[in-house]
Amino acid sequence: MKINSNYSNLKDSYLFSTIAKKVNEYKAANPDADIIRLGIGDVTLPLPKVCVEAMEKASAEMGVKETFKGYGEEQGYGFLRTAVAKYYTNRNVVLSDDEIFISDGAKSDLGNILDVFSVDNTVLIPDPVYPVYVDTNVMAGRNIVFMNGNEENGFLPMPQADVKADIIYLCSPNNPTGAVYNKAQLKEWVDYANRNDAVILFDAAYEAFIMDDTLPKSIYEIEGARTCAIEFCSFSKKAGFTGTRCGYTVVPKELVREGVALNKMWLRRQTTKFNGVPYIVQRGAEAVFTEEGYKQTQENIEYYLGNAKIIAATLDELGIKYFGGKNSPYIWLKCPDNMKSWDFFDMLLTKINVVGTPGQGFGENGEGFFRLTAFGSRENVIKAMERFKNLFA
Amino acid sequence: MKINSNYSNLKDSYLFSTIAKKVNEYKAANPDADIIRLGIGDVTLPLPKVCVEAMEKASAEMGVKETFKGYGEEQGYGFLRTAVAKYYTNRNVVLSDDEIFISDGAKSDLGNILDVFSVDNTVLIPDPVYPVYVDTNVMAGRNIVFMNGNEENGFLPMPQADVKADIIYLCSPNNPTGAVYNKAQLKEWVDYANRNDAVILFDAAYEAFIMDDTLPKSIYEIEGARTCAIEFCSFSKKAGFTGTRCGYTVVPKELVREGVALNKMWLRRQTTKFNGVPYIVQRGAEAVFTEEGYKQTQENIEYYLGNAKIIAATLDELGIKYFGGKNSPYIWLKCPDNMKSWDFFDMLLTKINVVGTPGQGFGENGEGFFRLTAFGSRENVIKAMERFKNLFA
Repeated sequence: MKINSNYSNLKDSYLFSTIAKKVNEYKAANPDADIIRLGIGDVTLPLPKVCVEAMEKASAEMGVKETFKGYGEEQGYGFLRTAVAKYYTNRNVVLSDDEIFISDGAKSDLGNILDVFSVDNTVLIPDPVYPVYVDTNVMAGRNIVFMNGNEENGFLPMPQADVKADIIYLCSPNNPTGAVYNKAQLKEWVDYANRNDAVILFDAAYEAFIMDDTLPKSIYEIEGARTCAIEFCSFSKKAGFTGTRCGYTVVPKELVREGVALNKMWLRRQTTKFNGVPYIVQRGAEAVFTEEGYKQTQENIEYYLGNAKIIAATLDELGIKYFGGKNSPYIWLKCPDNMKSWDFFDMLLTKINVVGTPGQGFGENGEGFFRLTAFGSRENVIKAMERFKNLFA
Repeated sequence: MKINSNYSNLKDSYLFSTIAKKVNEYKAANPDADIIRLGIGDVTLPLPKVCVEAMEKASAEMGVKETFKGYGEEQGYGFLRTAVAKYYTNRNVVLSDDEIFISDGAKSDLGNILDVFSVDNTVLIPDPVYPVYVDTNVMAGRNIVFMNGNEENGFLPMPQADVKADIIYLCSPNNPTGAVYNKAQLKEWVDYANRNDAVILFDAAYEAFIMDDTLPKSIYEIEGARTCAIEFCSFSKKAGFTGTRCGYTVVPKELVREGVALNKMWLRRQTTKFNGVPYIVQRGAEAVFTEEGYKQTQENIEYYLGNAKIIAATLDELGIKYFGGKNSPYIWLKCPDNMKSWDFFDMLLTKINVVGTPGQGFGENGEGFFRLTAFGSRENVIKAMERFKNLFA
């Protein structure tokens, strides 16, 4: 018996455990400190009312023989796939229902999709990065090449002619940097992928935060993407589904590699290794796309974006450079005075009792940067920004 | 770019599509035929009331800021893991909460668990078999050896000293044959696995149908299993969760291969590639383990077992040999007069309008056998058995 030896190459992440340890130690020494957490990567507002009502109704249906639902199609109910396809038409993107696969979240499918690719591919991953892209490929033993996100390129790395890659991860709006690719930039990536027979894995989990209509919410807004890109999306941040678990993955039928349609491979993967998302949850997700659902989710997103705006305005006032903060719930600031990420973390914690996330934890290029998120309460965001002004003014 | 070439080795299964085609053709030609389906592998009774109430309550909690739940632990909420551990104590099996991983169903985890093993292992799979065991290993390119289930061994293949395997699939009560291993038989498997450094993947999805207290519901009732077995279980057939999606996987801490604890590897796999089961669904599953939940799920299981008993009594009366039918929702009958599986299918369909599943569809050793299931309505089961008596008497 041999275990998967690639697991021994995984690096343990101590980022969030180290943060927790430092905060707990500080609290123990300073029990009266009023600590504000602006590092949280999870939503805090409750589910929209339409979603709750839809799930209550669906729960009741499951208790009645005539409306009870057993196994559904692994790729999701037609009512939800049709609703997703209709959502895409807002951006003039036409998808057929069988190009949409309902998932239990973008995280799962971003890892699972790798099943359809050979281990013998080179993977291009931005740094700083959401660690799941890296770890899932390390587990499979794939060769990883990093591309630099930095101040110069606005944390939006672009293709380089001398770098050959087969699988490319792009996340826009980006976690952790909040940076958003424009159409011209994505067009360069699409052209690069088509030219090099590569596949782009496009993580659109934060698309709902894009308010600027000139920015692409979907990679399929870019000509040529249907032959080179798979898109992953989620209800987690869009509608507060982090604990409710639903997302969707788009695999266009024109995406063919080595003569095989990846849509067909992914369907085979999902029907064999997955059994679908709960009926109740799919009804909750469907409600997001109703008129009332749109209104309610939009209110929540605007609340978070309002927080981001307050943070951004404060940093502007203080002359602290940052990325994101618009069209994204993340604010990626450059630590003043060339401080290192963890030194800045310690300073904020001890001097003004504000907790954020050191950029260094997202990769080497994150050193000297710091992530704040807009998912806290308005009250706390305002209070934290007052403290910023006192500290940095 | 290279795709995963192992996918080209997958065989398409035409079993259920061929059945559907034959039934539809017959219906088109005989529009008045009263067709009874005894081939269905899905539950038909609605969810227990306790589960529905728990999910309605949990849905409401998600709509209130104070009780809203964001990301939970990937391996499941403590309340559910504790409830599962307590259930195992009924059989004197002691598990710690961190040996239990809540899943979205046994099917997913039976495939996903393979991530922690090297591709370079030999897999031992019974024939006839649940196709997922085979396909997930073909996708990964593993060497598969089949072991024969047949009339002689009661469709309960036993270890052979001359067959070396690293990963062994056992399913008891078995799908499709309904056969159940006793403790002495499982002890032989556990000893074989420990002796050969192998790991048993024990599919206990139908454990709730075991009414005979001398038969093991869990492989951990067998001494030595904690160093060689992973157990997969599901609420699908136990509580009607086929469309609600919840199960659990047990990885004991003593299960170590090449010096590494598989519990730790599986935790790393799940925290990286999975994001947990919906909070609402976990509350529904928790309700299964309450006193009232036990009563309500038991009523449903007894209803299905009552159907199985009627089928078994009819076959006894007619002198048709079968396996299963007790401690299992499946009846695996030997086609009379040495008929082939599909010939028997055609005869039942055309002569008495009863639909079942040809055993040949579950593997070569299924030829000459036929699967009936107990998941239909009582009324239909009685009617179908009357037709059996008319045909075979």
